Amino acid sequence: MEPLFSVQILGSNSALPAYNRHPTSQLLNVNNQYYLIDCGEGTQMQLRRYGLKMQRIKVIFISHLHGDHYFGLIGLLNSFHLLGRKAGLTIVCPEGLKQILELQMDAANGKLQYPISYIFTDHIGDSHEPKLVFSDNHVKVEAFPLKHRVLCCGFMFKETKKLPAFKAELMERYKIPIAAIPGIKHGDDFETEDGQVISNKDLTIPSPEPRTYAYCTDTAPLPHLSDFLKGVNLLYHEATFTEELRSRAKQTFHSTAKQAAEIALQSEVRQLIIGHFSARYKTLEALLQEARETFEQTELAEEGMLFEIQ
Amino acid sequence: MEPLFSVQILGSNSALPAYNRHPTSQLLNVNNQYYLIDCGEGTQMQLRRYGLKMQRIKVIFISHLHGDHYFGLIGLLNSFHLLGRKAGLTIVCPEGLKQILELQMDAANGKLQYPISYIFTDHIGDSHEPKLVFSDNHVKVEAFPLKHRVLCCGFMFKETKKLPAFKAELMERYKIPIAAIPGIKHGDDFETEDGQVISNKDLTIPSPEPRTYAYCTDTAPLPHLSDFLKGVNLLYHEATFTEELRSRAKQTFHSTAKQAAEIALQSEVRQLIIGHFSARYKTLEALLQEARETFEQTELAEEGMLFEIQ
Repeated sequence: MEPLFSVQILGSNSALPAYNRHPTSQLLNVNNQYYLIDCGEGTQMQLRRYGLKMQRIKVIFISHLHGDHYFGLIGLLNSFHLLGRKAGLTIVCPEGLKQILELQMDAANGKLQYPISYIFTDHIGDSHEPKLVFSDNHVKVEAFPLKHRVLCCGFMFKETKKLPAFKAELMERYKIPIAAIPGIKHGDDFETEDGQVISNKDLTIPSPEPRTYAYCTDTAPLPHLSDFLKGVNLLYHEATFTEELRSRAKQTFHSTAKQAAEIALQSEVRQLIIGHFSARYKTLEALLQEARETFEQTELAEEGMLFEIQ
Repeated sequence: MEPLFSVQILGSNSALPAYNRHPTSQLLNVNNQYYLIDCGEGTQMQLRRYGLKMQRIKVIFISHLHGDHYFGLIGLLNSFHLLGRKAGLTIVCPEGLKQILELQMDAANGKLQYPISYIFTDHIGDSHEPKLVFSDNHVKVEAFPLKHRVLCCGFMFKETKKLPAFKAELMERYKIPIAAIPGIKHGDDFETEDGQVISNKDLTIPSPEPRTYAYCTDTAPLPHLSDFLKGVNLLYHEATFTEELRSRAKQTFHSTAKQAAEIALQSEVRQLIIGHFSARYKTLEALLQEARETFEQTELAEEGMLFEIQ
């Protein structure tokens, strides 16, 4: 069975919670390793609502320090502690967050019983180029600067590339010893007893292309992102407003649904999810329709929705 | 119609949200003036859920700086701002909270467009005596120290005593001029033209006794509170555990349902609400039953419940 690579929406609204829409948070599941992306107020309740085991979260990515993207973090960290967590946690975030969290822990006279390591993103704004900020056996994460009122990072999640599969049926034909297989999976050719060289490409089946997920919020539209986002499997791009409020979007460094769809089109992504909806929209149909006029493969980030990348 | 004096439960669980129970928050409504007591994560969503107009909140009381009592505050302050609030807000809290809030506002590069004044409670721990911390035309609030792992205040809310009513039907009989009425309401006797002195008590109808609400969480049981709580209309007292976990309660500076009921009994309060339930209790029947064995007029603080004091 192919390992999982999915994104579940925990909250999709902008600053004001409204119409039962919560502030931003998403859970990326890569092969049952959990990565939390942003953590608005109430995220821990949303994790419970959708039956997601919060202790599986190993890394938390915080795009920027507007409250609707992190006010739920301190409560989640506390709950990890109360639930007996010992496993380390990594937080990828602007440096200012560390002091905010520590001040609140100090005020409670408490100490978490698990270690937190921080990876700060403040340097990401130095150039347009994406920079590797995190990697493990499952995923590689690059951060890149968005255009907002405060330092804000987008994130590109890329499945760790698997080694190619060895064609086991050739073992007997070429008398390949087991000890040679790891080398072959890493690219070696094989020389048979009679000196014949079997090219690596004939011995292996290439692994599938790593799946990718890009997360872009909050931001004004940034056309140059298309180079970097090219061919991404799934793109989440904020769409706070419709075109009717384009000037408001510009003024507040947000995007319209159409602008999000244009980025998706230029980037030739497979699917677009729009979110971070303004509290002024009671229903979201107008935003969806506007995006689909430009980019048909658009979906709304509605709470609880699960986007699985095959 | 008698003015309102009611308490609505927005959250009643202890540190871990569980079984759809939220962390602590309550709304006191005195004559349609709103006073918020504690503000756990998700309080702003709870206010919306119960259709309570959040901009009516004029004062927020924070008992102590454990997260389940204040992690929802920064989000609420932000939402006030986004909803266009201009009216001032008063926060009664330990001093440490100010820095926590300001650090988060600074990180967002933002400034609230309404003023906040703080009343700090750090000195409350200096003695057992309740101290007046806030009063306005509707309510007078005294704070008193509880016994917890960090500085923690209980609060006593007492309706502002109304002036007695003047018996208007006596105006003609004694030829009382309108100008004399305010003095009579403040306690003056009245001397008629022929020198007869009419005693104030014959001219007025005493106002009803001010209604009272006392809020005691988080705390180990404090028997000396009974003197101060004597005859309170409504007492909220924490009951984190049942007697089975009495030693756990002692160790963590919390109370059992029985201990809460004992305080209510000794204080001769009219009604007791228990809350701040441990996440280990899936249902709350055992806690209620335990408290009622000692003090029959006990209710559970269940979310959304409205306790009106007549």
